[in-house]
Amino acid sequence: MAEVRIAPQPIRRADRARQVADVLRHQIHGGAYGDGLPGEPELAAEFVVSRNIIREALAALQDEGLIHRGPRVGTHVAQHKFDHGLDVLLGLQETFDGQEVRNEVRAAATISAPPSVARRLLLEPGAPVVFIERLRYLGDLPLSLDQTYLVPDIGAAVLAHPLETNDLFPLIEQISGQPLGAASLALEAIPADRHSATILQLPGGAALLMLERLTTLADGRPVDLEYIRMRGDRVTMRGNLTRSTP
Amino acid sequence: MAEVRIAPQPIRRADRARQVADVLRHQIHGGAYGDGLPGEPELAAEFVVSRNIIREALAALQDEGLIHRGPRVGTHVAQHKFDHGLDVLLGLQETFDGQEVRNEVRAAATISAPPSVARRLLLEPGAPVVFIERLRYLGDLPLSLDQTYLVPDIGAAVLAHPLETNDLFPLIEQISGQPLGAASLALEAIPADRHSATILQLPGGAALLMLERLTTLADGRPVDLEYIRMRGDRVTMRGNLTRSTP
Repeated sequence: MAEVRIAPQPIRRADRARQVADVLRHQIHGGAYGDGLPGEPELAAEFVVSRNIIREALAALQDEGLIHRGPRVGTHVAQHKFDHGLDVLLGLQETFDGQEVRNEVRAAATISAPPSVARRLLLEPGAPVVFIERLRYLGDLPLSLDQTYLVPDIGAAVLAHPLETNDLFPLIEQISGQPLGAASLALEAIPADRHSATILQLPGGAALLMLERLTTLADGRPVDLEYIRMRGDRVTMRGNLTRSTP
Repeated sequence: MAEVRIAPQPIRRADRARQVADVLRHQIHGGAYGDGLPGEPELAAEFVVSRNIIREALAALQDEGLIHRGPRVGTHVAQHKFDHGLDVLLGLQETFDGQEVRNEVRAAATISAPPSVARRLLLEPGAPVVFIERLRYLGDLPLSLDQTYLVPDIGAAVLAHPLETNDLFPLIEQISGQPLGAASLALEAIPADRHSATILQLPGGAALLMLERLTTLADGRPVDLEYIRMRGDRVTMRGNLTRSTP
Protein backbone atom coordinates (compact mmCIF):
# COMPACT_ATOMS: atom_id res chain seq x y z
CA MET A 1 0.00 0.00 0.00
CA ALA A 2 2.85 2.37 0.85
CA GLU A 3 4.04 4.52 -2.02
CA VAL A 4 6.23 7.13 -0.42
CA ARG A 5 7.04 7.03 3.25
CA ILE A 6 6.88 10.45 4.86
CA ALA A 7 9.08 10.84 7.89
CA PRO A 8 6.75 11.65 10.80
CA GLN A 9 7.16 15.31 11.63
CA PRO A 10 7.37 16.53 15.20
CA ILE A 11 4.67 18.87 16.46
CA ARG A 12 5.88 22.36 17.31
CA ARG A 13 4.96 23.90 20.61
CA ALA A 14 2.70 26.65 19.24
CA ASP A 15 0.92 24.08 17.08
CA ARG A 16 0.47 21.94 20.12
CA ALA A 17 -1.11 24.88 21.97
CA ARG A 18 -3.54 25.45 19.10
CA GLN A 19 -4.39 21.76 19.12
CA VAL A 20 -5.20 21.94 22.83
CA ALA A 21 -7.16 25.19 22.39
CA ASP A 22 -9.33 23.65 19.66
CA VAL A 23 -10.22 20.64 21.72
CA LEU A 24 -10.82 22.77 24.84
CA ARG A 25 -13.04 25.14 22.87
CA HIS A 26 -15.33 22.33 21.86
CA GLN A 27 -15.27 20.72 25.27
CA ILE A 28 -16.32 24.05 26.76
CA HIS A 29 -19.13 24.47 24.21
CA GLY A 30 -20.20 20.93 24.86
CA GLY A 31 -20.57 21.77 28.55
CA ALA A 32 -17.84 19.33 29.62
CA TYR A 33 -16.60 21.68 32.34
CA GLY A 34 -19.75 23.51 33.38
CA ASP A 35 -18.70 27.04 34.31
CA GLY A 36 -15.24 26.38 35.74
CA LEU A 37 -12.25 24.76 34.04
CA PRO A 38 -9.83 22.40 35.81
CA GLY A 39 -6.50 23.87 36.92
CA GLU A 40 -3.42 23.96 34.73
CA PRO A 41 -1.85 20.82 36.25
CA GLU A 42 -5.03 18.81 35.66
CA LEU A 43 -5.31 20.03 32.08
CA ALA A 44 -1.62 19.35 31.45
CA ALA A 45 -2.15 15.78 32.65
CA GLU A 46 -5.33 15.38 30.61
CA PHE A 47 -3.63 16.52 27.39
CA VAL A 48 -0.21 15.03 28.19
CA VAL A 49 1.51 18.35 27.49
CA SER A 50 3.49 20.88 29.52
CA ARG A 51 1.84 23.59 31.63
CA ASN A 52 3.36 26.18 29.29
CA ILE A 53 1.37 24.76 26.42
CA ILE A 54 -1.82 24.76 28.52
CA ARG A 55 -1.16 28.40 29.44
CA GLU A 56 -0.69 29.34 25.81
CA ALA A 57 -3.92 27.55 24.83
CA LEU A 58 -5.89 29.25 27.61
CA ALA A 59 -4.50 32.64 26.57
CA ALA A 60 -5.84 32.08 23.04
CA LEU A 61 -9.29 31.18 24.39
CA GLN A 62 -9.22 34.25 26.61
CA ASP A 63 -8.46 36.41 23.55
CA GLU A 64 -11.52 34.92 21.88
CA GLY A 65 -13.63 36.06 24.82
CA LEU A 66 -14.52 32.48 25.65
CA ILE A 67 -13.04 32.29 29.14
CA HIS A 68 -12.08 34.60 32.00
CA ARG A 69 -8.89 33.94 33.97
CA GLY A 70 -7.95 35.36 37.34
CA PRO A 71 -5.04 34.80 39.72
CA ARG A 72 -7.25 33.55 42.53
CA VAL A 73 -10.54 32.67 40.92
CA GLY A 74 -9.17 30.24 38.33
CA THR A 75 -10.52 29.85 34.82
CA HIS A 76 -14.19 30.37 34.13
CA VAL A 77 -16.38 30.08 31.10
CA ALA A 78 -17.25 33.64 30.04
CA GLN A 79 -20.29 32.70 28.04
CA HIS A 80 -21.86 29.69 26.44
CA LYS A 81 -22.39 29.77 22.71
CA PHE A 82 -25.72 29.08 21.09
CA ASP A 83 -26.23 26.52 18.34
CA HIS A 84 -28.07 27.51 15.20
CA GLY A 85 -29.08 24.78 12.77
CA LEU A 86 -27.73 24.37 9.26
CA ASP A 87 -30.07 21.51 8.38
CA VAL A 88 -33.51 23.05 8.62
CA LEU A 89 -34.67 26.57 7.84
CA LEU A 90 -35.74 28.09 11.14
CA GLY A 91 -36.03 31.60 12.47
CA LEU A 92 -34.26 32.67 15.63
CA GLN A 93 -37.36 32.58 17.84
CA GLU A 94 -38.23 29.14 16.49
CA THR A 95 -34.68 27.92 17.15
CA PHE A 96 -34.49 29.20 20.70
CA ASP A 97 -38.01 28.23 21.58
CA GLY A 98 -38.56 29.08 25.21
CA GLN A 99 -35.67 31.51 25.48
CA GLU A 100 -36.25 35.19 25.28
CA VAL A 101 -35.49 36.59 21.82
CA ARG A 102 -36.06 40.34 21.64
CA ASN A 103 -35.70 42.52 18.56
CA GLU A 104 -34.79 46.18 18.51
CA VAL A 105 -36.19 47.50 15.24
CA ARG A 106 -33.61 49.98 13.95
CA ALA A 107 -35.14 50.64 10.55
CA ALA A 108 -38.35 49.67 8.76
CA ALA A 109 -39.05 51.46 5.51
CA THR A 110 -39.82 51.07 1.83
CA ILE A 111 -36.79 51.85 -0.33
CA SER A 112 -35.68 51.47 -3.94
CA ALA A 113 -34.15 48.04 -4.48
CA PRO A 114 -30.43 48.17 -5.29
CA PRO A 115 -29.82 46.29 -8.56
CA SER A 116 -28.45 43.09 -7.06
CA VAL A 117 -31.22 42.94 -4.46
CA ALA A 118 -33.81 43.45 -7.19
CA ARG A 119 -32.22 40.74 -9.31
CA ARG A 120 -32.28 38.18 -6.53
CA LEU A 121 -35.89 38.97 -5.58
CA LEU A 122 -36.88 38.91 -9.29
CA LEU A 123 -37.94 42.58 -9.22
CA GLU A 124 -37.15 45.44 -11.61
CA PRO A 125 -34.11 47.50 -10.54
CA GLY A 126 -35.33 50.43 -8.45
CA ALA A 127 -38.63 48.72 -7.64
CA PRO A 128 -39.84 49.27 -4.08
CA VAL A 129 -38.68 46.78 -1.46
CA VAL A 130 -39.29 46.79 2.26
CA PHE A 131 -36.07 47.09 4.24
CA ILE A 132 -35.98 46.10 7.91
CA GLU A 133 -32.99 46.26 10.21
CA ARG A 134 -33.23 44.54 13.56
CA LEU A 135 -30.79 44.08 16.40
CA ARG A 136 -31.62 40.72 17.95
CA TYR A 137 -31.05 39.95 21.60
CA LEU A 138 -30.93 36.61 23.30
CA GLY A 139 -30.96 37.44 26.98
CA ASP A 140 -29.12 40.67 27.73
CA LEU A 141 -26.54 40.57 24.95
CA PRO A 142 -26.98 41.22 21.24
CA LEU A 143 -26.75 38.07 19.16
CA SER A 144 -27.05 39.43 15.63
CA LEU A 145 -27.74 42.43 13.46
CA ASP A 146 -30.18 41.45 10.70
CA GLN A 147 -30.86 43.35 7.50
CA THR A 148 -33.84 42.10 5.54
CA TYR A 149 -35.22 42.95 2.10
CA LEU A 150 -38.78 41.78 1.44
CA VAL A 151 -40.77 41.83 -1.80
CA PRO A 152 -43.19 44.78 -1.61
CA ASP A 153 -46.52 42.95 -1.31
CA ILE A 154 -45.41 40.75 1.58
CA GLY A 155 -43.19 43.46 3.07
CA ALA A 156 -46.01 45.98 3.35
CA ALA A 157 -48.12 43.46 5.26
CA VAL A 158 -45.17 42.51 7.48
CA LEU A 159 -44.75 46.16 8.50
CA ALA A 160 -48.24 46.08 9.96
CA HIS A 161 -47.16 43.50 12.55
CA PRO A 162 -45.12 44.03 15.70
CA LEU A 163 -41.56 43.13 14.77
CA GLU A 164 -40.12 43.38 18.28
CA THR A 165 -41.25 39.90 19.22
CA ASN A 166 -41.99 38.07 15.96
CA ASP A 167 -39.76 36.04 13.67
CA LEU A 168 -40.26 37.01 10.03
CA PHE A 169 -40.64 33.43 8.74
CA PRO A 170 -44.00 32.64 10.40
CA LEU A 171 -45.26 36.12 9.45
CA ILE A 172 -44.34 35.57 5.81
CA GLU A 173 -46.08 32.19 5.83
CA GLN A 174 -49.19 33.68 7.44
CA ILE A 175 -49.31 36.59 4.98
CA SER A 176 -48.58 34.58 1.84
CA GLY A 177 -50.83 31.70 2.85
CA GLN A 178 -48.17 29.13 2.01
CA PRO A 179 -45.16 27.58 3.73
CA LEU A 180 -41.64 28.66 2.97
CA GLY A 181 -39.86 26.35 0.57
CA ALA A 182 -36.08 26.54 0.69
CA ALA A 183 -33.24 28.95 1.21
CA SER A 184 -29.84 29.31 -0.35
CA LEU A 185 -27.23 30.57 2.01
CA ALA A 186 -23.66 31.82 2.10
CA LEU A 187 -21.60 31.89 5.29
CA GLU A 188 -18.49 33.98 5.78
CA ALA A 189 -16.26 35.19 8.58
CA ILE A 190 -15.75 38.95 8.35
CA PRO A 191 -14.30 41.58 10.67
CA ALA A 192 -16.88 43.88 12.26
CA ASP A 193 -16.77 47.41 10.85
CA ARG A 194 -16.67 50.00 13.62
CA HIS A 195 -20.32 50.90 13.42
CA SER A 196 -21.60 47.31 13.44
CA ALA A 197 -19.19 46.50 16.26
CA THR A 198 -20.59 49.31 18.41
CA ILE A 199 -24.15 48.15 17.80
CA LEU A 200 -23.26 44.54 18.62
CA GLN A 201 -21.27 45.62 21.70
CA LEU A 202 -18.01 44.25 20.31
CA PRO A 203 -14.55 45.74 19.77
CA GLY A 204 -13.92 46.92 16.21
CA GLY A 205 -12.61 44.19 13.93
CA ALA A 206 -14.15 41.39 16.04
CA ALA A 207 -14.94 38.25 14.05
CA LEU A 208 -18.52 38.07 12.81
CA LEU A 209 -20.27 35.09 11.27
CA MET A 210 -22.03 36.62 8.28
CA LEU A 211 -24.99 34.78 6.79
CA GLU A 212 -26.54 35.80 3.49
CA ARG A 213 -29.81 33.96 2.99
CA LEU A 214 -32.32 34.08 0.13
CA THR A 215 -35.58 32.41 1.06
CA THR A 216 -38.31 31.29 -1.33
CA LEU A 217 -41.93 30.35 -0.81
CA ALA A 218 -43.03 26.77 -1.44
CA ASP A 219 -44.02 27.83 -4.96
CA GLY A 220 -40.41 28.85 -5.65
CA ARG A 221 -40.86 32.62 -5.55
CA PRO A 222 -37.98 34.41 -3.77
CA VAL A 223 -39.43 36.78 -1.17
CA ASP A 224 -36.85 37.43 1.55
CA LEU A 225 -33.17 38.35 1.22
CA GLU A 226 -31.26 38.71 4.48
CA TYR A 227 -27.79 39.74 5.60
CA ILE A 228 -27.30 38.52 9.16
CA ARG A 229 -24.23 39.51 11.18
CA MET A 230 -23.87 37.13 14.11
CA ARG A 231 -21.44 37.73 16.96
CA GLY A 232 -18.71 35.16 16.42
CA ASP A 233 -18.36 34.62 20.15
CA ARG A 234 -22.04 33.77 20.63
CA VAL A 235 -23.13 31.53 17.75
CA THR A 236 -22.12 28.20 16.27
CA MET A 237 -23.84 26.94 13.12
CA ARG A 238 -24.27 23.17 13.13
CA GLY A 239 -25.32 20.74 10.43
CA ASN A 240 -24.76 17.48 8.67
CA LEU A 241 -23.41 16.59 5.27
CA THR A 242 -23.52 13.42 3.24
CA ARG A 243 -20.89 12.25 0.80
CA SER A 244 -23.31 12.27 -2.14
CA THR A 245 -26.34 14.45 -2.81
CA PRO A 246 -29.43 12.78 -1.38
CA MET B 1 -54.50 41.88 9.23
CA ALA B 2 -52.87 44.86 10.93
CA GLU B 3 -52.49 44.53 14.68
CA VAL B 4 -50.11 47.28 15.65
CA ARG B 5 -48.90 49.80 13.11
CA ILE B 6 -45.20 50.53 13.44
CA ALA B 7 -44.20 53.97 12.27
CA PRO B 8 -41.69 53.44 9.46
CA GLN B 9 -38.28 54.29 10.81
CA PRO B 10 -35.77 56.26 8.81
CA ILE B 11 -32.50 54.58 7.90
CA ARG B 12 -29.43 56.10 9.51
CA ARG B 13 -26.45 56.98 7.39
CA ALA B 14 -24.06 54.39 8.87
CA ASP B 15 -26.74 51.73 8.47
CA ARG B 16 -27.17 52.79 4.89
CA ALA B 17 -23.42 52.41 4.29
CA ARG B 18 -23.51 48.89 5.73
CA GLN B 19 -26.46 48.10 3.51
CA VAL B 20 -24.51 49.25 0.45
CA ALA B 21 -21.36 47.39 1.58
CA ASP B 22 -23.29 44.12 1.96
CA VAL B 23 -24.78 44.33 -1.49
CA LEU B 24 -21.47 45.40 -3.04
CA ARG B 25 -19.65 42.54 -1.32
CA HIS B 26 -21.91 40.00 -2.92
CA GLN B 27 -21.86 41.73 -6.29
CA ILE B 28 -18.07 41.62 -6.18
CA HIS B 29 -18.04 37.93 -5.21
CA GLY B 30 -20.55 37.25 -7.97
CA GLY B 31 -18.15 38.79 -10.48
CA ALA B 32 -20.53 41.64 -11.36
CA TYR B 33 -17.68 44.13 -11.71
CA GLY B 34 -14.81 41.97 -12.94
CA ASP B 35 -11.64 43.40 -11.43
CA GLY B 36 -12.52 47.10 -11.38
CA LEU B 37 -15.43 48.79 -9.63
CA PRO B 38 -17.36 51.72 -11.13
CA GLY B 39 -16.49 55.20 -9.82
CA GLU B 40 -18.16 56.78 -6.79
CA PRO B 41 -20.64 58.84 -8.85
CA GLU B 42 -21.79 55.76 -10.77
CA LEU B 43 -22.18 53.73 -7.56
CA ALA B 44 -24.02 56.62 -5.88
CA ALA B 45 -26.45 56.67 -8.79
CA GLU B 46 -26.85 52.89 -8.79
CA PHE B 47 -27.67 52.79 -5.08
CA VAL B 48 -29.53 56.12 -4.99
CA VAL B 49 -27.41 57.33 -2.06
CA SER B 50 -24.86 60.10 -1.48
CA ARG B 51 -21.20 59.77 -2.41
CA ASN B 52 -20.35 59.97 1.30
CA ILE B 53 -22.28 56.78 1.91
CA ILE B 54 -20.54 55.08 -1.01
CA ARG B 55 -17.17 56.18 0.38
CA GLU B 56 -18.03 54.77 3.81
CA ALA B 57 -19.14 51.47 2.26
CA LEU B 58 -15.97 51.18 0.18
CA ALA B 59 -13.84 51.94 3.25
CA ALA B 60 -15.46 49.00 5.07
CA LEU B 61 -14.77 46.67 2.14
CA GLN B 62 -11.19 47.89 2.03
CA ASP B 63 -10.81 47.08 5.75
CA GLU B 64 -12.00 43.56 4.97
CA GLY B 65 -9.21 43.22 2.41
CA LEU B 66 -11.72 42.79 -0.39
CA ILE B 67 -10.78 45.81 -2.50
CA HIS B 68 -7.83 48.12 -3.08
CA ARG B 69 -8.38 51.84 -3.57
CA GLY B 70 -5.97 54.36 -5.01
CA PRO B 71 -6.22 58.06 -5.82
CA ARG B 72 -5.52 57.56 -9.50
CA VAL B 73 -6.10 53.88 -10.15
CA GLY B 74 -9.66 53.72 -8.83
CA THR B 75 -11.14 50.79 -6.95
CA HIS B 76 -10.01 47.27 -7.72
CA VAL B 77 -10.99 43.86 -6.48
CA ALA B 78 -8.13 42.63 -4.28
CA GLN B 79 -9.01 38.99 -4.49
CA HIS B 80 -11.88 36.77 -5.44
CA LYS B 81 -13.26 34.46 -2.80
CA PHE B 82 -13.66 30.75 -3.32
CA ASP B 83 -16.91 28.88 -2.72
CA HIS B 84 -16.89 25.75 -0.63
CA GLY B 85 -20.02 23.61 -0.58
CA LEU B 86 -22.21 23.01 2.45
CA ASP B 87 -24.44 20.49 0.68
CA VAL B 88 -22.09 17.65 -0.17
CA LEU B 89 -19.08 16.33 1.70
CA LEU B 90 -16.09 17.08 -0.50
CA GLY B 91 -12.40 17.58 0.11
CA LEU B 92 -10.61 20.71 -1.01
CA GLN B 93 -8.94 19.13 -4.03
CA GLU B 94 -12.27 17.63 -5.10
CA THR B 95 -13.99 21.01 -4.69
CA PHE B 96 -11.43 22.98 -6.65
CA ASP B 97 -10.97 20.37 -9.31
CA GLY B 98 -8.56 21.72 -11.88
CA GLN B 99 -7.10 24.39 -9.63
CA GLU B 100 -3.83 23.85 -7.89
CA VAL B 101 -4.26 22.80 -4.26
CA ARG B 102 -0.95 22.31 -2.51
CA ASN B 103 -0.45 21.13 1.07
CA GLU B 104 2.47 21.96 3.31
CA VAL B 105 2.61 19.13 5.86
CA ARG B 106 3.53 20.79 9.17
CA ALA B 107 3.04 17.78 11.42
CA ALA B 108 2.29 14.10 10.94
CA ALA B 109 2.66 11.90 13.99
CA THR B 110 0.97 9.41 16.25
CA ILE B 111 -0.06 10.99 19.57
CA SER B 112 -2.21 10.12 22.58
CA ALA B 113 -5.82 11.12 21.92
CA PRO B 114 -7.04 13.94 24.18
CA PRO B 115 -10.22 12.80 25.98
CA SER B 116 -12.71 14.67 23.82
CA VAL B 117 -11.01 13.54 20.60
CA ALA B 118 -11.04 9.96 21.85
CA ARG B 119 -14.70 10.22 22.77
CA ARG B 120 -15.72 11.50 19.35
CA LEU B 121 -13.70 8.86 17.51
CA LEU B 122 -15.04 6.16 19.87
CA LEU B 123 -11.55 5.34 21.21
CA GLU B 124 -10.29 4.90 24.75
CA PRO B 125 -8.86 8.11 26.26
CA GLY B 126 -5.12 8.17 25.62
CA ALA B 127 -5.38 5.68 22.76
CA PRO B 128 -3.08 6.41 19.84
CA VAL B 129 -4.43 8.67 17.10
CA VAL B 130 -2.70 9.98 14.03
CA PHE B 131 -2.44 13.76 14.03
CA ILE B 132 -1.77 15.65 10.80
CA GLU B 133 -1.45 19.40 10.40
CA ARG B 134 -1.46 20.81 6.91
CA LEU B 135 -1.32 24.33 5.57
CA ARG B 136 -3.34 24.30 2.38
CA TYR B 137 -2.63 26.62 -0.52
CA LEU B 138 -4.84 27.49 -3.42
CA GLY B 139 -2.55 29.31 -5.81
CA ASP B 140 0.09 31.34 -3.99
CA LEU B 141 -1.85 32.19 -0.83
CA PRO B 142 -2.75 29.98 2.11
CA LEU B 143 -6.42 29.08 2.20
CA SER B 144 -6.66 27.09 5.42
CA LEU B 145 -4.79 25.48 8.26
CA ASP B 146 -6.17 21.97 8.83
CA GLN B 147 -5.68 19.82 11.92
CA THR B 148 -6.81 16.24 11.50
CA TYR B 149 -7.16 13.35 13.96
CA LEU B 150 -7.52 9.92 12.37
CA VAL B 151 -8.31 6.58 14.01
CA PRO B 152 -5.03 4.64 14.31
CA ASP B 153 -5.63 1.87 11.77
CA ILE B 154 -6.61 4.22 8.96
CA GLY B 155 -4.22 6.96 10.12
CA ALA B 156 -1.16 4.70 9.97
CA ALA B 157 -1.99 3.76 6.38
CA VAL B 158 -2.66 7.41 5.46
CA LEU B 159 0.81 8.35 6.69
CA ALA B 160 2.29 6.05 4.07
CA HIS B 161 0.87 8.21 1.26
CA PRO B 162 2.13 11.57 0.02
CA LEU B 163 0.01 14.17 1.77
CA GLU B 164 1.34 17.17 -0.15
CA THR B 165 -1.00 16.59 -3.07
CA ASN B 166 -3.77 14.28 -1.84
CA ASP B 167 -7.08 15.03 -0.15
CA LEU B 168 -7.64 12.80 2.86
CA PHE B 169 -11.18 11.76 1.91
CA PRO B 170 -10.28 9.65 -1.17
CA LEU B 171 -7.32 8.17 0.75
CA ILE B 172 -9.59 7.13 3.63
CA GLU B 173 -12.04 5.57 1.19
CA GLN B 174 -9.25 3.70 -0.60
CA ILE B 175 -7.73 2.44 2.66
CA SER B 176 -11.00 1.46 4.33
CA GLY B 177 -12.49 -0.03 1.18
CA GLN B 178 -15.76 1.78 1.66
CA PRO B 179 -17.17 5.22 0.85
CA LEU B 180 -17.50 7.91 3.46
CA GLY B 181 -20.98 8.23 4.88
CA ALA B 182 -21.76 11.55 6.48
CA ALA B 183 -20.20 14.32 8.49
CA SER B 184 -21.45 16.50 11.31
CA LEU B 185 -20.04 19.97 11.25
CA ALA B 186 -19.86 23.12 13.30
CA LEU B 187 -19.00 26.51 11.79
CA GLU B 188 -17.79 29.49 13.78
CA ALA B 189 -16.15 32.83 13.21
CA ILE B 190 -13.13 33.24 15.48
CA PRO B 191 -10.23 35.71 15.64
CA ALA B 192 -6.88 34.31 14.50
CA ASP B 193 -4.46 33.78 17.37
CA ARG B 194 -1.07 35.30 16.59
CA HIS B 195 0.60 32.06 15.66
CA SER B 196 -2.18 30.87 13.31
CA ALA B 197 -2.33 34.37 11.79
CA THR B 198 1.38 34.27 10.97
CA ILE B 199 1.06 30.87 9.35
CA LEU B 200 -1.96 31.95 7.30
CA GLN B 201 -0.24 35.25 6.36
CA LEU B 202 -2.87 37.35 8.10
CA PRO B 203 -2.73 40.12 10.71
CA GLY B 204 -3.38 38.91 14.28
CA GLY B 205 -7.06 38.84 15.19
CA ALA B 206 -8.18 38.51 11.56
CA ALA B 207 -11.53 36.76 11.16
CA LEU B 208 -11.27 33.03 10.49
CA LEU B 209 -14.04 30.70 9.43
CA MET B 210 -13.52 27.72 11.71
CA LEU B 211 -14.95 24.37 10.67
CA GLU B 212 -15.06 21.41 13.01
CA ARG B 213 -16.00 18.28 11.09
CA LEU B 214 -16.45 14.69 12.26
CA THR B 215 -16.64 12.29 9.34
CA THR B 216 -17.91 8.72 9.44
CA LEU B 217 -17.54 5.82 7.05
CA ALA B 218 -20.62 4.48 5.27
CA ASP B 219 -20.93 1.87 8.05
CA GLY B 220 -21.29 4.68 10.61
CA ARG B 221 -17.85 4.44 12.22
CA PRO B 222 -16.32 7.86 12.97
CA VAL B 223 -12.79 7.95 11.58
CA ASP B 224 -11.76 11.54 10.93
CA LEU B 225 -12.07 14.60 13.21
CA GLU B 226 -10.88 17.88 11.71
CA TYR B 227 -10.42 21.46 12.85
CA ILE B 228 -10.11 23.62 9.76
CA ARG B 229 -9.20 27.32 10.02
CA MET B 230 -10.12 29.03 6.78
CA ARG B 231 -9.04 32.57 5.94
CA GLY B 232 -12.22 34.62 6.22
CA ASP B 233 -11.20 36.76 3.28
CA ARG B 234 -10.77 33.80 0.93
CA VAL B 235 -13.63 31.37 1.54
CA THR B 236 -17.41 31.44 1.42
CA MET B 237 -19.39 28.36 2.45
CA ARG B 238 -22.54 27.91 0.38
CA GLY B 239 -25.49 25.61 0.78
CA ASN B 240 -29.22 25.14 0.72
CA LEU B 241 -31.80 24.59 3.42
CA THR B 242 -35.38 23.43 3.33
CA ARG B 243 -38.12 24.47 5.73
CA SER B 244 -38.72 20.90 6.94
CA THR B 245 -36.34 17.98 7.29
CA PRO B 246 -36.37 15.98 4.05
